[in-house]
Amino acid sequence: MTRRTFIPALSAALLAKSAAQPTINAARLRERIEKLSEFGRPSGGAFADGVSRVAYTDADIAGRAYVRSLMVAAGLMPRVDAAGNISAVRSGSGSNLPPVLIGSHIDTVPNGGNFDGVLGSLGAIEVAQALRDVDLTTRRPIEVVIWSNEEGFAFNNGLCGSRAAAGMLEPGELDTVWEGMRKSSAIRKIDGDPGSIASAQRKPGSFHAYVELHIEQGGVLDQAGVPIGIVEGIVAIDRHDVEIRGFANHAGTTPMPVRKDAMLAAAELITAVNEIVRREPGAQVGTVGQIAVTPNAPNVVPGLVKLTVELRDLSSAKITRLADLIRQRAQVIAGQTQTEINMRPAAHHNEALANPEIQSTIEGVCKRMGIQTRRLPSGAGHDAQAMATLGRMGMIFVPSVGGVSHSPKELTKWEDCARGTEVLLNTVLELAK
Amino acid sequence: MTRRTFIPALSAALLAKSAAQPTINAARLRERIEKLSEFGRPSGGAFADGVSRVAYTDADIAGRAYVRSLMVAAGLMPRVDAAGNISAVRSGSGSNLPPVLIGSHIDTVPNGGNFDGVLGSLGAIEVAQALRDVDLTTRRPIEVVIWSNEEGFAFNNGLCGSRAAAGMLEPGELDTVWEGMRKSSAIRKIDGDPGSIASAQRKPGSFHAYVELHIEQGGVLDQAGVPIGIVEGIVAIDRHDVEIRGFANHAGTTPMPVRKDAMLAAAELITAVNEIVRREPGAQVGTVGQIAVTPNAPNVVPGLVKLTVELRDLSSAKITRLADLIRQRAQVIAGQTQTEINMRPAAHHNEALANPEIQSTIEGVCKRMGIQTRRLPSGAGHDAQAMATLGRMGMIFVPSVGGVSHSPKELTKWEDCARGTEVLLNTVLELAK
Repeated sequence: MTRRTFIPALSAALLAKSAAQPTINAARLRERIEKLSEFGRPSGGAFADGVSRVAYTDADIAGRAYVRSLMVAAGLMPRVDAAGNISAVRSGSGSNLPPVLIGSHIDTVPNGGNFDGVLGSLGAIEVAQALRDVDLTTRRPIEVVIWSNEEGFAFNNGLCGSRAAAGMLEPGELDTVWEGMRKSSAIRKIDGDPGSIASAQRKPGSFHAYVELHIEQGGVLDQAGVPIGIVEGIVAIDRHDVEIRGFANHAGTTPMPVRKDAMLAAAELITAVNEIVRREPGAQVGTVGQIAVTPNAPNVVPGLVKLTVELRDLSSAKITRLADLIRQRAQVIAGQTQTEINMRPAAHHNEALANPEIQSTIEGVCKRMGIQTRRLPSGAGHDAQAMATLGRMGMIFVPSVGGVSHSPKELTKWEDCARGTEVLLNTVLELAK
Repeated sequence: MTRRTFIPALSAALLAKSAAQPTINAARLRERIEKLSEFGRPSGGAFADGVSRVAYTDADIAGRAYVRSLMVAAGLMPRVDAAGNISAVRSGSGSNLPPVLIGSHIDTVPNGGNFDGVLGSLGAIEVAQALRDVDLTTRRPIEVVIWSNEEGFAFNNGLCGSRAAAGMLEPGELDTVWEGMRKSSAIRKIDGDPGSIASAQRKPGSFHAYVELHIEQGGVLDQAGVPIGIVEGIVAIDRHDVEIRGFANHAGTTPMPVRKDAMLAAAELITAVNEIVRREPGAQVGTVGQIAVTPNAPNVVPGLVKLTVELRDLSSAKITRLADLIRQRAQVIAGQTQTEINMRPAAHHNEALANPEIQSTIEGVCKRMGIQTRRLPSGAGHDAQAMATLGRMGMIFVPSVGGVSHSPKELTKWEDCARGTEVLLNTVLELAK
């Protein structure tokens, strides 16, 4: 693995002209996406059966090793920071310039898809590989990063690696426990160093720009037939943990009027979340995705229900107001069902606006490439929102067929994967000038 | 362990007069209830922390061994039938007379109480022990039985042992699987013989009467301050398995109007069950006690929900009609939420009426003992309902403090345990004449 050293006598611009035009290798990108999907694939399944590569699991660890090997093949020297983020810098010709930072994540939700995070991660590595293929050295350094635990299925709190890099970890977060494992131990499992987690922190202005390629995960681009989306911003997300305490009792001998049925209270709350979120105009969404019932037996009136309420909108103020309405309604439901309902904030991510200059740069690149674009907000959270607190951020979206994501049916056409990565490459070349 | 042989020269009536009057030993009964509660007790817990002695588990197996040892101590020779029921006959003086059958079950729901089933089981053994204490031989034989898997938490289908005895097992029931275990294997674990399950079947008229002592599990006797309840009948129970198929998708990128949210559909169905069951007069109850959500992550719109709907009333016709109304409403909800809802019957128990003569016998016994009684239906299912298909059945209820059951807080006062067992003893003496 040798790498051509930059020759200072030649200007970067001249070098760029003299070298062959870099281009991404669509077949190689596809092959690697298919290979990565094997780590966490259901036993006996195929690519179309999706993947469960939850952060910190053996599948995640195996996937990370594979990704590191690809970085090495691209001439990079990956290192793992204290939060478990994998990153590597490709030197530029300009000395001491902040790098153009590109990347994404490779962890998934359980029964997730093959493209969420993966395309941006392998796309970033492909950019480095494409530059190496033609021996091109950019003026600014290029840094490739694979953030740890973006999905947050483990520990119910995502963007773990990028938040550590932005100094946004919550007090006590490393001591939280999930499935009997402390978060600090989980981070150690992926070669992080929770004891010196602060060392993972990046300084504001430490990168020239952060650009993340990602599948849209919604259906806007697919429905409109537009191949590239330019993200205006990422919605704010509030996650609340709700605990409903009723009284477990025999389902046959407890008359309806005297029941304290935590399941019934939960059902009314879930219906209320839907009603409150939908009754006003706007693109806000509210989801109850997780529930745990105790004792969860057909012949016992449930005594305890825990569930999550998640709210998203481009405006933090709006979801705060919606959460207040839901909390008020919960108290009414508690009174009607003779239960106690406690709703407490479990996670909050502010909205993050994409930098207008970066948006224009991506737009200009696409124009030159003859590619139609559309500006749109991101309803999904991304590591980019943590990076937006440190510097200029931009995101490139490619279409998700049918708007399906977080599902084995998640699909982005191979030509869209390649096109998005080509746009990322050209955006990087523009920004690294 | 010798047992006085019946001397044919003396008539049974003469013998009963000549022997001391049998009486139950309240301290011994309490001690044994406390001891049995240790099998399945939460680690480090006390009696008040309840018990998880789910059928076929190690705790159940240990509890069954303890109960067998008590039967032996009472001079009985317990055997285990093909369904895992433990029973033993105490010979009577009258040759070839069908026995008076008494007993209950010792399995519990998870996080259950110390009295449900236990009182009737140890009470029946106490009756045999009390007769042995005074060397009294009744005219009719007395058979003590401990039915297997009454609660049906395992395999979601209760009264397993008593249904086998009544020839009421469902086709294919032994091949159902619960937590990776086939029911036939589970029965083998408790020394049953699933291959010859038909041998557990009892003939109609094979017992003179079946009498089961049980805690009420509801709050009627406790609230009224009446120490003994005489059961008029056991409600019919229908259990339905409901499967709701939506579409799992990203909680941030899937707009509210296009969601196929199986959790929302479940919530509306749970609310509908409550509304449909409560809107007409009567004592019918409807419960959604168990739910399983896939993928059950805070940031994924749930794609699949499975839940149970359980309906109870003294009239089978009424719960069948309620189930139809719920099924119709489910289709409306499916249409509104863009989901598919499938509701299929999973278990059915007909109502079982207590025999009027047995009810009168218990009433007469209580009158002679100076004990106030009340007739009432049983909202809970019991092994007695399977026995009612074979012959005359009666049940004796004692108060549950606060009507609490299927909970560690389940409590019946020791004096009520003793009083109920004494009523059982005297009822048996009357019936065995």
